[in-house]
Parts: sequence; structure tokens; C-alpha cells
Amino acid sequence: KQKEFEKTTGKVSSQSKEALRAALAGVLERRMFYIPSFKIYGSVAGFYDYGPPGCAIKQNMTQVWRTHFVLEENMLEVECPAVTPEVVLKASGHVDRFTDFMVTDVATGECFRADHLLEGHLEALLEDKKNPVSPEKAKVIRDLLAGVGELKADTMGAALTEYDVRAPGTGNAISPPFAFNLMFKTSIGPKGDMVGFLRPETAQGIFVNFRDLLYYNGGKLPFAAAQIGNSYRNEISPRAGLLRVREFTQAEIEHFVNGDDKRHPKFALVADLRPLLYSRELQMGEEKKAQPMSLGEAVSRGIIANETLAYFIGRTWLFFCKIGVNPARMRFRQHLQHEMAHYATDCWDGEVETTYGWVECVGLADRSAYDLKAHSAMSKIDLTAFEKFPEPRMEEVVKVVPNNKELGAVFKKDQKAVKEALEALDSNAALDVKAKLESGQAATVSSCDGQTFEIKAGMVEIKKVTEKVTGKTYTPSVIEPSFGIGRIMYCMFEHCYYTREGDETRAVMGFKPVVAPTKATVFPLVQKPALNELAGRISRELTAAGLSNLIDTTGNTIGKRYARTDEIGVPFAVTVDFASVEGDGSVTLRERDSMTQVRVPAGEVAVVIRDLVDDRTSWEAVTGKYPAQKAPADDE
Amino acid sequence: KQKEFEKTTGKVSSQSKEALRAALAGVLERRMFYIPSFKIYGSVAGFYDYGPPGCAIKQNMTQVWRTHFVLEENMLEVECPAVTPEVVLKASGHVDRFTDFMVTDVATGECFRADHLLEGHLEALLEDKKNPVSPEKAKVIRDLLAGVGELKADTMGAALTEYDVRAPGTGNAISPPFAFNLMFKTSIGPKGDMVGFLRPETAQGIFVNFRDLLYYNGGKLPFAAAQIGNSYRNEISPRAGLLRVREFTQAEIEHFVNGDDKRHPKFALVADLRPLLYSRELQMGEEKKAQPMSLGEAVSRGIIANETLAYFIGRTWLFFCKIGVNPARMRFRQHLQHEMAHYATDCWDGEVETTYGWVECVGLADRSAYDLKAHSAMSKIDLTAFEKFPEPRMEEVVKVVPNNKELGAVFKKDQKAVKEALEALDSNAALDVKAKLESGQAATVSSCDGQTFEIKAGMVEIKKVTEKVTGKTYTPSVIEPSFGIGRIMYCMFEHCYYTREGDETRAVMGFKPVVAPTKATVFPLVQKPALNELAGRISRELTAAGLSNLIDTTGNTIGKRYARTDEIGVPFAVTVDFASVEGDGSVTLRERDSMTQVRVPAGEVAVVIRDLVDDRTSWEAVTGKYPAQKAPADDE
Repeated sequence: KQKEFEKTTGKVSSQSKEALRAALAGVLERRMFYIPSFKIYGSVAGFYDYGPPGCAIKQNMTQVWRTHFVLEENMLEVECPAVTPEVVLKASGHVDRFTDFMVTDVATGECFRADHLLEGHLEALLEDKKNPVSPEKAKVIRDLLAGVGELKADTMGAALTEYDVRAPGTGNAISPPFAFNLMFKTSIGPKGDMVGFLRPETAQGIFVNFRDLLYYNGGKLPFAAAQIGNSYRNEISPRAGLLRVREFTQAEIEHFVNGDDKRHPKFALVADLRPLLYSRELQMGEEKKAQPMSLGEAVSRGIIANETLAYFIGRTWLFFCKIGVNPARMRFRQHLQHEMAHYATDCWDGEVETTYGWVECVGLADRSAYDLKAHSAMSKIDLTAFEKFPEPRMEEVVKVVPNNKELGAVFKKDQKAVKEALEALDSNAALDVKAKLESGQAATVSSCDGQTFEIKAGMVEIKKVTEKVTGKTYTPSVIEPSFGIGRIMYCMFEHCYYTREGDETRAVMGFKPVVAPTKATVFPLVQKPALNELAGRISRELTAAGLSNLIDTTGNTIGKRYARTDEIGVPFAVTVDFASVEGDGSVTLRERDSMTQVRVPAGEVAVVIRDLVDDRTSWEAVTGKYPAQKAPADDE
Repeated sequence: KQKEFEKTTGKVSSQSKEALRAALAGVLERRMFYIPSFKIYGSVAGFYDYGPPGCAIKQNMTQVWRTHFVLEENMLEVECPAVTPEVVLKASGHVDRFTDFMVTDVATGECFRADHLLEGHLEALLEDKKNPVSPEKAKVIRDLLAGVGELKADTMGAALTEYDVRAPGTGNAISPPFAFNLMFKTSIGPKGDMVGFLRPETAQGIFVNFRDLLYYNGGKLPFAAAQIGNSYRNEISPRAGLLRVREFTQAEIEHFVNGDDKRHPKFALVADLRPLLYSRELQMGEEKKAQPMSLGEAVSRGIIANETLAYFIGRTWLFFCKIGVNPARMRFRQHLQHEMAHYATDCWDGEVETTYGWVECVGLADRSAYDLKAHSAMSKIDLTAFEKFPEPRMEEVVKVVPNNKELGAVFKKDQKAVKEALEALDSNAALDVKAKLESGQAATVSSCDGQTFEIKAGMVEIKKVTEKVTGKTYTPSVIEPSFGIGRIMYCMFEHCYYTREGDETRAVMGFKPVVAPTKATVFPLVQKPALNELAGRISRELTAAGLSNLIDTTGNTIGKRYARTDEIGVPFAVTVDFASVEGDGSVTLRERDSMTQVRVPAGEVAVVIRDLVDDRTSWEAVTGKYPAQKAPADDE
């Protein structure tokens, strides 16, 4: 199988990539893994329906995710609505900043993503063999291409003008780029006065519940919360199938931790894993290629910022291996400094290699305390945690004691706001104020609603005192692994797809048994009542063991039946023949990828398959235990 | 337990209902089963978050549903987007008719549901002890109350005026009632010209995929498709917690079947079940009380319209029993004739008795071929199935042969439309046309876009011929069981809640093990390293067996720890004591409801609990197999 796999998915030319993608797409659509939604009405771009096998795979993958993360790590799983009032997404920054640049065809009004248009235009210039650009110009273009994602409205507009980019198809002029918010907007309630959006990510539901979750967890940190659910982005131009859609399933984790101590108690369990890491350094270097490195080394050398982030990289890697992504074609790419939000400490994307290039499937980000601080500021609700020291400590602290009488006399009705602003100063800011006042200057403080006040000597006493301190109040940092389930599925499809040796038309979806939509098929060898009856009994036993199965009594040749089930990736096939009902009562059990076969007593076969699916036994162990069945020619 | 249960949930006065509801609500919110969404921003009515135990129960219930229906019945599960283009919901009738009547306070603009307002007002009149209404008036009011759901805008308006209903709180006048569409509206794509809605039900996703699903199923009927997903209704005034919310999870089945033959091959498996049936006859009768009746009898007496509908009623009843709804407090209520849509053949609601009265949790409807016909008419896509007869039959058929030359001469450019209209006539309509033409009259036919044409003799030949017919083309009927997951959860909560004998403050959620969010807790009896270590090992073994578990090393008394876990309904508790590490190596295993305890070898306990959760063994069998541990006083 591995050879076959390499043959179709190893070093391939651009054309064979296209061919592979088309062949796979044929299987996926024909077998209804997923299809465009609302097909009878002509479909709507960016929406897909999962048909029966796709739906089952999605369930199975999600269940593996839940076991691997939520159950094994004792995470707090929550489920929050997709419809979200504006204030939540105002606090998170999505209302103001969750935008892409759009341009329109000035004549037809058709809309395009500005970055896609510019990229396409520049790539075409580089590839133009008839009118090749000069080496100097090529370098300028390549530099511009590398930075397209960072352009602002004005620089993007300038580039589009400079290269005379026009609307595809019509060749018409395009508008200057403008920001288009990607959230679906709606209205909540009957009055029409409450703006709502469909959430663009599930994470915010966790942040707004932080206080209740902390209480639920007995006030203890660190803890992680998780959510699996649908998110919505009104993409300007959806494309590339499941890779860029308007409604998609996310599985997100928010691990809350004290920013001063990001060690992880279970880090040792992943320290020796060696995933491909594509660090900032390697991206800036000559070879531009990810290298395997143990996570322990990556943390100790400061390549990954902390143990907790590295722990999740390791757990993510194990998850991808479990569901059938080829680890040799998966890497973790570190964000370059300019790619990260200003508050982020370190970010790594889990990327999988496909015919579309490297596809970002997971984002792992140390977002510091940004999110909780933003919601706390907007909601005026305290979202801090308290860490009790094992023993109280004597510590030098800065005390701010406002002079109420003086503040009242000067600020009148603003007295309270000024007092609060003074008391909210952190130690360093308070010491700055103290220094200014002592040097005879005035100092300025700001209230939470943005008013500023001038503070003069006598209005406040600021002093260092040594106090018994029992603990520390802080806003937790959050480390966020965020998974795009549809993208992971598509990448897994590409990695699992292969064709039978010697027959390019016989497609096989080599799904891991745990992910496979149907775990087994049951075939009576020929159409006879006794054989059909035993096949029916085995099918019922499989169902009772929780194993999805198909019984095929069509009477087609066994070879033809295998070809059908290969396309939906059924890992095991049970064939009932005359020996099963008249002889020793055994049936043939066949494994999809090796195509090897053993004879198993009919009454044991459901248990054997259950153990194989649950990874309690391996096919090797099964072939060791049961007698081999010499296979007839492949297309028996 | 049953006695306790009766005590709190049997015949209760209105006041004790309120008390039960409040006590349960306290547990549900305190233990974060579910809480109002966006709490730190003051919440938005009709939206709830599931916290960790609620989320786990929802997963478990959904998984039971999937096994019980999708796996055991080999249904085709699909997953479609919530965002839906207008045309789909135009075809289904939701754009035009998915409305509630609303009135507004003329001074404040506040919105109310007209039916709720009228009901509340009439009920208050009936209950008014100070100014009692006359017996005659009371009868008029009761009749009006019974029919509130059927009022149209004008009759509703007249009733509101007649009884001088005013806005609650303010006492202001209210507007006349007007229809308010309950769908959340949005816009798809960047141009703003494509109207979309959030789906009000998941069913439409299945109907629009019928053609592909039929193909997937090899063209064979009957088959069922299923979908679990979120639906959205912008309720005017959400209330009663999980019972009326704006975003909720549905699990819907569409069973497609030939309308001429609604027998079900597995009906015998449910024929002897005796759920409480509340037929039309019983509802119109004196006693107004549901009665147990075998489903076989109900079908043979014509009470339930057909086997397939009755089969799903039986399967639904089994599902409710499996997840812990008390079958004595569940009934199936048949829709009265005037409650049903004109196309429906028969409808039954699965209702569960709670402190809110009987709550509709499931609708089971025989919707005839309405849905597929509606989508076929709108999309112009053929949504029929073909039933091949076992043997071709000689049948008398009506043939319609348009005279093209004559049609062309008379209708010119409309020739094609007229021809299609003639060919689309069914047998009876064609014979009507034939009769008219033969008696010298003209006949009228309509094209699909509503144009009518006058047909005269000579334009068409209509004749009866005997032909060999190989099969029949028909639009399948659909039988739709539709489950509201959140409502079922809430009803289950009420049925599972009880308090420990003699202590009204000790709440227990008596969840079935398969539904319970946490399957087991592990307690070291006292804080000792050896005990903690063994407890940790058992916890890891439980996790490896896929069993969610909690380890509690707080050192609280065992009684206090039980009280905590009772509130989240943990069915099994493992206590590690000195005998476990120094003596015979056994641990105490306690069952929540009976509070009985046995000693089980530490190495076996995970397997025993797995078997209990999966229903492979019972607590009785376990107490028979292992030695009892004499319990210390309950609050040990």
C-alpha cells in the first residue's frame, strides 16, 4: 500500500496533481462523501452537504477528537449558540477587523477578493514565457507576492493600479479595494433593533463563559475548555471545495493558564515525539524546508515558546496520525513575527501537504491574556483568577491611597471615576505617578471609559509597603488549538486515496478502521437461502456490536463487490460460503489494504472486527491467530 | 427510588410543581448543565449554553439516537448547512407561512405573541375568584381558549378587542395582530443580493437531496434519511427555559415510501408494545385520558393510519425508555383533524408530562408526497421514484397524443407549453378532456406556469390502450419523525430528578448510565499516597475504556463527595481503602440509586463499569456475583 501511495502522491508534476485531484473528486462526489448543497436549485458557492459516508466519517473523526482531547485531558466541553449578539463580537474585535479586501468590477458589480486577484496577476506575470519579465522585475514581484497578506487598503490599491489589474473575464476596470466584513449579519428578536451575527469562530463562547467555567472547576487553574460546533464566514469567493467554505465545523480548545508558568505536567509524555517543525529560522533560511525535531529539544532551545504550546503540538500530531494523515506530509509552521497579532506570544499552524499545496488545518496560538482582558473591559465583569500561594509571603507592594477629600473638592462628580482610575494603576504605573508628583510635575490617569484626569501632589499617597500576601490575582493567558474539521477531512481523503496496483481505475479509500464510515461488508458467496441467512445473522451481530455494516446480496462477482466497497473505504469484508454453513462454520475475513484473508469462526467474527476497529488487536495478530485463506485471483 | 420519585413527581399540587421546578433549576444552573448564553453581557432571551455535564448528556443522548435509529435501521445520515437560500424555503412554504401573530404595545413598541396574550387573559378571567364569570360566559371562554391556535388574523384581532386585552405591565393598548415570520434572515455572498435564512428545521436539507439519496440507495425504496443539526426560530417571546428557544438541535428522519404500500417489514418487532395512545377519539371523549394499547391493535383498528407510522411510534417509545423518560408519563397524542396540514394523512405527537404540563418532544407525521412535490414544482427537477413490477403487467392506460400540426397552427409560440400541459394530464383529467371534446365542448388545460389554454376537438387524440407496463413512476410519500433534543433533555431531567429519602436538600439526578455525563467517580478513602496512586491507576483504566470519570482527592467525607456526584448523576462510585492496597486488593463499587455496595477486585472494576454502562450486565447481576460491602450510615 505504501508503494502505491507514494506512486500517486509522492513527487508529482503539476499535471498529475490535477489528475489525482480530479480522480479523487470523482469518487467523493459519486459516492456522496460530500456534494454541493441545494443542487436542485443550482447550488450556492461555499456550501456543502455531507452524504452518508462523509457524515459517518465526520462523526467518527469528531469522536476520536473528543476522546483524544476532551476525555483524555479532562477538558470542560461546552456548546454555545452560533447566533451571537453584536456586543460579544465588538469586544473580540470581529465587528471592526474581521474583514477581507474586496474589489468590484466597475461595470458588472461582480465582487472579487483583492489579494486573490493581485496574486493571480503577479503569478501569471512570473509564468509568462512569451513576455518574460527581467530578473530584477521578477525579484520585485516575488517580494510583493510574499507580502500580499500584509498589505493595507492603500498599498493594496497602489499595487493593483501599478500592475493594472483588471476584472477577470470582462477585463473591466476594478474599484479601489475596500474592507468587507466576513460575518453573516442577522437581527435577533421581533423588534429588529438587536444586531446579531453568526459566530465566525466558536472560541468566543468559551471566553464569555470563563467565569462560570472557572467556578465549575473549583477555582483552579490551569484548565482547558473545548467546543465543537459550526462557524460561519461569508467568504467573498469560496473555492477549493471543502478548503474554503462559508459554513464549517470547528473544534476549538482554550487552555487557560497562569502566564507566569506555562509548564505542562504531562509534557514528558510528548517530549520525545519528532514532528516536522518549520520554525521561523528555517523559513528564513536557505533550504526552506521543515525538519523533524523532538518537542523537548524545541522547547529547551526556545524554538517553541513554552511547554504547554509544545504539548498541544504533540497531541495534535498524534491526533492526525490516529485519523490517517501521513505524518511525513504534515508539518508545524511557526508564524513569522509580522504574521502574528500584536498580543500573541507564539503561533504554529498544523499544515498538511495536498494537491492544493500546504493546507492550514490547525492553528495553535499562545494568545496571552488578550481575549479575557477584552471581554472584561467590554462587559465590566471581573475575569481574573486567584492563585493562592502555598505559604503566605512577605512582599513589597505598592499601595495607592487616594485622598478623597481633595479629589472631591477638585473633581466634583468625577471623584469616583478618578478614585477608581488611581486604584486600577498597576505597580509600575503607580510608581511613575509617584515619581512625577515627587518631582513637582502633574500626572495623568485614564478612567476605563477613556476620560483623562490630571493628578497633582496631595491628591493621592503612593507608597511601597511590605505586606503579607496570600496569593496573586491575574488574568489568565490562553493557549488555543483550533481545528478545522472539514479541511482535515479533505486532507485525510487525499492521503488515504490510492489505486490498486496495475489498475488505475480501481480507487481505494484507505481509511483507518476507526474513521471508516462502514466497518465491514458481509457477502454471501452466491445467492442461496442458507448463505443469506448466515450473512444476515452476522450483519445483526455486527450491528449489535456497534459496527456499521453493509450486506450485499446482489449476486455480483466478489471482485465487483470488493471494488464497490473499496471506494467507500470499508476495511473488512466477511464472505460466507458453503463451508460456513456445511463445513467447519468458518467465514472468510479480508483486510482491504493487504487483501490478505483468514478463516474465522462465524461466531467470532464480530468480536474480531470490533477489536480491530478499536485498535485492541492488529491485522498481523489476526493473521497470526487464524488460518490463512488462499486468495483466488484478485478479481475472483 | 421509585417511591421517592412518586413522592416528588406524582400527583402534585400546582405549588409543589413550582417548588420542584425551582429546586431542579437550582441544580441545573449550579452544576452548569445549561446556563443563559452571553451572561456577562446580560444574556439574550432564548439562547442557552450547555456546560460540561449538559454537553456530555447531549452527546450521549444523540449517540443513543444515532445507534437506535441510524445504525439499527441502516438510515442514510446527511449533514446540510443551516444557512439556506430563499428559494428552498419559498418552495417549502416557510417564507410565506412560518409565522406567529404578534401585537405591539402602541406606546412602548414592545412585542408580544398574540395567542399567549389572549390565552393568559382568558385564563385569568376563568380563575378570577373576586369577579367570577357566569357559567355561560365561562363556557364561551373555554371554547375560545381551546381554539386559540386556529384563529386567523381577523378573528384573533376581534377576540383581543372583545376582551379588551392590553399590554402586560403597562396596560397600554395593543396593535392589531400581524403575522411575524420566525426565520432569522441574512444575506449570502458579498453583493448583498441573495437573501438567505437560517433553516427553521433540518428536514428541507433531506428533501432537496432526495434524488441523490435515491441514487445512492440504488434506486430502491423505501429508505430513510436522517439528520441531526441545529435549527433556528426567532421566537417572539422565548420562555420556559429549554422548551422554547431560538437555536436548538433537531434529529429528524424522513422515511420515503410508496404511498400505496405503507407496510413495514419490521412491524412485528413493535406490534406488541403498549405505549399510552391518546387518539382523536379519546381526546373527543368524556374521560380525556390516554390509554395503553398495543400498536398492532392500533393499526388493525385503523387508529394509527399505517404500519410504518406505527413502527416509528414504537421505536420512538423504546428510545425514550432507553434514555430515562418514565414511560408512564409519556403519551402519543394524535392530531385532531383541524390541527393537521391539508396534505397530512395522520400525525401523532410524542408528549412527556412535566411541571409545564404535557410537552411535545417528537412529532410523527405522515406528510404524504407534499414535500417532494413542492420542491419538484419549484426546481423543475424530477423527484419521483420508479417501482419495477416483479413481472410486467398488461394494463389499460390512457394515452394522450397531441396533434402537433393543429397545435402549432392555433397556438403558435405557445405550442410547446400546450403540448406539455396535455402530456402532463393524469388519467382521470385526460378522460375528462376526452369526454368534453367528444360531447362537442371545449376543454381547458393549464401549463405549469399558470397559463390556461382552450382545447378543441382535433387538437389531441386521447385513447385507452392496453399496454405492457413494467413498473410505475410515483412521487414517494414521506413519514417524518422529528425530535427536539433540548426538550427531550429537559423532560428527562425532570423525570430523573429526586431527593434522598429523609433529606429534601440532597438532590439526585438519576440518569441512566448510558446518558450520565460522568460514568464513575474514584475516591481514595483518605489522603494517603498509596491510595491516591491506586485511585489514579483506576481512573486511567476507566479513561482507557472510554469511560468519563472524576477523581476526587479533596479529602472531604465520603458522604459529602457522594452528595456532589449525586447532583451530576454519576451512577457508579469506586472507593479505594486500605484493604485495596494492603488487603485483598478489592475496592468498593457503589450504585447511585440503590446505594448498595459490592467489593470488586481493583483490576476488574473498569470492565464491570463498562459492561454496566453498555447494558451488557445489570446491577443485580453484579451484586449477585461480588460480595456485598455493608454500607456505613449513608453520610458515612
